[in-house]
Amino acid sequence: MKAAVLRELNAPLVIEDVTIEKPQAGEVLVRTAASGICHSDLHVIEGGIPLPPPCVLGHEPAGVVEEVGEGVTGFAPGDHVIGCLSAWCGVCELCVSGKPYLCPGAFTEFGRPIGTTPRLSTNGDPILQFANLSSFAEQMLCPERSLVKIRPDMPLDRAALIGCGVTTGLGAALHTARVEPGSSCAVIACGGVGLAAVQGCRIGGAGRIIAIDNQPKKLELAQQLGATHVINAADGDPVAQVMELTGGGVDYAFECIGLAVTTQQAVGMIKRGGAAVFVGVVPVGQMVEFHVADITLSEKRILGSLMGSNRFRVDMPRYVDFYLDGRLKLDEMISARIGLEDVNDAFDRMRQGEMARQVIHFEH
Amino acid sequence: MKAAVLRELNAPLVIEDVTIEKPQAGEVLVRTAASGICHSDLHVIEGGIPLPPPCVLGHEPAGVVEEVGEGVTGFAPGDHVIGCLSAWCGVCELCVSGKPYLCPGAFTEFGRPIGTTPRLSTNGDPILQFANLSSFAEQMLCPERSLVKIRPDMPLDRAALIGCGVTTGLGAALHTARVEPGSSCAVIACGGVGLAAVQGCRIGGAGRIIAIDNQPKKLELAQQLGATHVINAADGDPVAQVMELTGGGVDYAFECIGLAVTTQQAVGMIKRGGAAVFVGVVPVGQMVEFHVADITLSEKRILGSLMGSNRFRVDMPRYVDFYLDGRLKLDEMISARIGLEDVNDAFDRMRQGEMARQVIHFEH
Repeated sequence: MKAAVLRELNAPLVIEDVTIEKPQAGEVLVRTAASGICHSDLHVIEGGIPLPPPCVLGHEPAGVVEEVGEGVTGFAPGDHVIGCLSAWCGVCELCVSGKPYLCPGAFTEFGRPIGTTPRLSTNGDPILQFANLSSFAEQMLCPERSLVKIRPDMPLDRAALIGCGVTTGLGAALHTARVEPGSSCAVIACGGVGLAAVQGCRIGGAGRIIAIDNQPKKLELAQQLGATHVINAADGDPVAQVMELTGGGVDYAFECIGLAVTTQQAVGMIKRGGAAVFVGVVPVGQMVEFHVADITLSEKRILGSLMGSNRFRVDMPRYVDFYLDGRLKLDEMISARIGLEDVNDAFDRMRQGEMARQVIHFEH
Repeated sequence: MKAAVLRELNAPLVIEDVTIEKPQAGEVLVRTAASGICHSDLHVIEGGIPLPPPCVLGHEPAGVVEEVGEGVTGFAPGDHVIGCLSAWCGVCELCVSGKPYLCPGAFTEFGRPIGTTPRLSTNGDPILQFANLSSFAEQMLCPERSLVKIRPDMPLDRAALIGCGVTTGLGAALHTARVEPGSSCAVIACGGVGLAAVQGCRIGGAGRIIAIDNQPKKLELAQQLGATHVINAADGDPVAQVMELTGGGVDYAFECIGLAVTTQQAVGMIKRGGAAVFVGVVPVGQMVEFHVADITLSEKRILGSLMGSNRFRVDMPRYVDFYLDGRLKLDEMISARIGLEDVNDAFDRMRQGEMARQVIHFEH
C-alpha cells in the first residue's frame, strides 16, 4: 500500500510502497477513507513528540473495516469506524473510572510493543506506527480499542475530524469544563481545536462565547460556528479586552494553542470561581509562572484537558449524531481536501497558520 | 471594654479600653467568649494583609448575643454564635450560586464603609475592625451576616475554631475537593488548617491520608487526628516520598501553608487525573512556576480553595454536630488557652511554629 513515510526529522514525508501485516489477535485492518492533518503530526516531524523515524504519521482518520483478527467481536468487514489515538486498556483504575483517555497504557508505546512483528515495514525494515494508527496510508492495522464504530450514513471525511481535533475541543467544553447554559466562555486561538471548543460552548448552551485570535479570517469562521463576540489579540491585551467586555471575566477560558503566555491569559481572564481549561499542550518541560494567591483567593480552577476528557465509544457516536442533526458544524472546518501526495504542501500551509483543518482523501 | 489594639505594624498589641457603639440596623452586639489566633492576624501585624493601624485583630470567635439592632430577626440575646470573616451579601451571582464565601462584597472593606460612624474608637479616634469582627476584644459589633447561630450545648472555645481555620481545612477536603471514600490524600503542612484538612479527609472517608510536615510533634498530632501515614519533609523530597509510598501519586494533595515550593510539590505528587488544592495563601503578587504540559497531558487539576468553599450557615452547624458526635476532634487541636493579656506571647509562639491552635478565653 502507499504511505507517507517520515524518513528523517524536519524533512518532507516520502510517498512509498509499504508492507502492512495481516491482523493478529485483537487487531483490525482498516481501509483509510480520510485523515485529518493535525499539529501533533507536525510536532513529530519537528522532533517535539519523540517518535523516531522511519514512521508513518496521521492519527485523525476514518475508514472502513477490511478484515478482523482472531477474537475481535466488536467489528466486522464493512463497518465504518473512526480511529482514536488512545488504545485504552479497559481494566485499569482510570479506565473503570470513566477516564479511558487517561489510561496510562494508551500513550506509552507510540510504536509497537517490543518483541512483536512490526506492523509496517519496507523490505523487512520496520516502520513505526504513530499512536497505533498511521493514517497517512491507504490502510491501517490497529488494536480494536483504537476504533469506534459509527453510523454508516456519516460522511467519512467529516467523521475523520472527530478522531482528534474536534473531540478535543468539543470535549473540553462539554466534559472537562461542563459549561452550563448561559455561562460565559472565552476560547483562545481558533484553529481546529479552538473552533471545536467554540462549538462545544455553543452546544453546551453558553450565553456568551468570546473567540480570541490574531487572524481576522479565523475570527470570522469562529462567528459562523457560534462565537457571539470576537477579540483580535493584535488590538491589545486580550485579558483587558475580555475584562472590559464582560465586566469582570468569564466563567470558562479555553487555552487551545499551547503557549506559555496564553495559559497565563486564560487564568487572568476568568472571574472569581471560574475555570481555565488547558487544552493546548505547551512543550514538555516548559515552566510557566502563575499568580498563585489570585488562584487561591479567587478560588480559580486550572483544569488540564486531554483528548477532551472523552470516552471514545460513548462520546464519538454522539458527536456523529450532533453533526447529522445539524448541531455540530464540520463542513465549515475543512479548509482543504487534498490527496496523499500533497501532504507536504499541507504542512507548509499549516506552518503559515492559515488553515482550520486540512483533510487527506484516499481514492480506492 | 478591653481590646488588644494594633497601634503600629510589627509592634506588640496594646491592651486598652475601647469604646464600642450600640448596634445599628442589621448589626448585632456579641459578648466574645473565645477567639482563636490565626496566622492571618499575624499577617496584618507584619503588613502582609493591608489593614492600617489602629485596628483590633481577631477573626475566629464564638460568643453570646447581647443586643440586636433594628431589623435583625435571625438572632436574639442569649443566642450562641460563631463569627465568620465573610459578611456575604446574599444577593450577588456568587452568593446565589452556593458560593457566599466568594461574595465580592465580603472582603472589600476590612474596616467600616466610609461615611458611617466608626464602630470602635478611643476618645473619638476611630479604630478599624478586622473582617467586621475584631474578636481580640470583650465585645464585637458585627453585621448580622457575619454570624452563624449554633447549638447551645457546643463549648464556645471549640466553636471558635470553626470560625476560620477548621472550616478552611475541613471544607477544602469536603467541599472544594469532595474527596471520595477510599481515595488517597496528602496534606502538606500540619498547622491548624492542615490538621483540619486531615480530619476532612478522614470524615470524607479517604483510604490513605498522608500528613507531611518537618516537625515530628505535628506529625504525631496528625496521626491522632486521622493520618494513616506521615512523611517528614526533612527526610528528603516529599514528592519522591509520596511517589514511593503510593506508587504513582495521590488523588488529592492539599497545600496548607502558602509557600511557592509546596504548591509545586502539591501539583507534583498527584496522580493522573488528580487535584492539587491550594488552601494556603502565598504572598499576593508572588509568581510560581509550574510544568504546564504535565497539567494538560496528565489532566491534573489545580483548585483554589477559599475559606473551605463553605456556606457559612449551612456548613458550620454541621461541623458543630461533627464535634458533638465525636467525628471532628477539636480538643486535640487547642495547644494553649490564654487570657487576652497574653496575646503577644501567643504570637511569639506562633512565630516559632510549634503551636496547632491557641485560643483566647474571655472571663466575663
